[in-house]
Amino acid sequence: MFSPLIEELIRALRCLPSVGPKSAQRMAMYLLEKDRDAAELLARSLAQAVEKVGRCQQCRTLTEEAVCTLCNNSRREQTSLCVVETPADVLAIEQAGNYHGRYFVLHGHLSPIDGIGPADLGMDLLERRLASEPLQELIVATNPTVEGEATAQYIAERAKAQGVTVSRIAHGVPIGGELEYIDGGTLAHAFNSRTAFFPPAE
Amino acid sequence: MFSPLIEELIRALRCLPSVGPKSAQRMAMYLLEKDRDAAELLARSLAQAVEKVGRCQQCRTLTEEAVCTLCNNSRREQTSLCVVETPADVLAIEQAGNYHGRYFVLHGHLSPIDGIGPADLGMDLLERRLASEPLQELIVATNPTVEGEATAQYIAERAKAQGVTVSRIAHGVPIGGELEYIDGGTLAHAFNSRTAFFPPAE
Ligand SMILES: [Zn+2]
Ligand SMILES: [Zn+2]
Repeated sequence: MFSPLIEELIRALRCLPSVGPKSAQRMAMYLLEKDRDAAELLARSLAQAVEKVGRCQQCRTLTEEAVCTLCNNSRREQTSLCVVETPADVLAIEQAGNYHGRYFVLHGHLSPIDGIGPADLGMDLLERRLASEPLQELIVATNPTVEGEATAQYIAERAKAQGVTVSRIAHGVPIGGELEYIDGGTLAHAFNSRTAFFPPAE
Repeated sequence: MFSPLIEELIRALRCLPSVGPKSAQRMAMYLLEKDRDAAELLARSLAQAVEKVGRCQQCRTLTEEAVCTLCNNSRREQTSLCVVETPADVLAIEQAGNYHGRYFVLHGHLSPIDGIGPADLGMDLLERRLASEPLQELIVATNPTVEGEATAQYIAERAKAQGVTVSRIAHGVPIGGELEYIDGGTLAHAFNSRTAFFPPAE
């Protein structure tokens, strides 16, 4: 129905996550009818980001700098390192606001079926950091999925071999969550990982 | 939190309709982490569309051609012309499938408060077409809003002055709609525009 260039734009917009045919069409019409400046800005911004954004040499998060702001921030604790699957996980943890150490971004998880092994997750870099930095704790914050757990297990073993204390973030019923709406797997995990109300004095 | 180029990309994505901060962030991460080819394609496609897409010389719909496919289609009835506010309206009517004439796209409606007058809607071009083409009917399909109605009224008067029959598409309760969920304005209009079950024989 639309002209070839408009149809192509609609198809390109459909590549965006959770954008269906109707939304893509509405977006294309909006940009071409109402805001061509925004369309140009988006085009330039996409091209620039694709060309220049790479990975931080220390933590592998997405950045156009050699070393990201977080790694360069000398006020962050140098003694703890948190391993996450994605850059968005870093943001989520930063927004929670109670972690003050540094990060390491895997960009995925171990997945032999997809041919994703330790090298793809930057394990060589992580091991070098474990060996050379004054780390007191490695916190593994991969997702509580089968692959995330397997990845956590692998990393924990490598860190232990290097004499670094490893911990895993807790999983269970979300704060404010109502038991009746929590899935069975989470609830089972919450029971298995229960902690003593009155821990024995040491 | 993200690097400047990524933050800029997130801001640019937020200009898209119904894309909030969370979606924009998810889109940016998806494009940079998972599909840089899609990001490049979208950048190119946006730049091309902004540069090349203009308006059809005959109907003013968006197209990169001088005259659009619909206007160039000799099988479309030359005797009826349908006036709509946007190119998306053309698509909606084409998808309904029972109109076989041609279109004229206003790209908006009269809005004195925003300084939008007849010239901005291409009324000079429309009048030239009314004067020179073998039109039997002008169908006004602007939206049933205050501005759309005022625009319809204006166009109807111009067409009548040129001796062209003018009609307005019907408004009322949508087919399949349930009365209890229809807004009062629509319902009032549906009552005022009621038609005789048994029209008097002519
Ligand atoms: Zn970094
Ligand atoms: Zn046309």
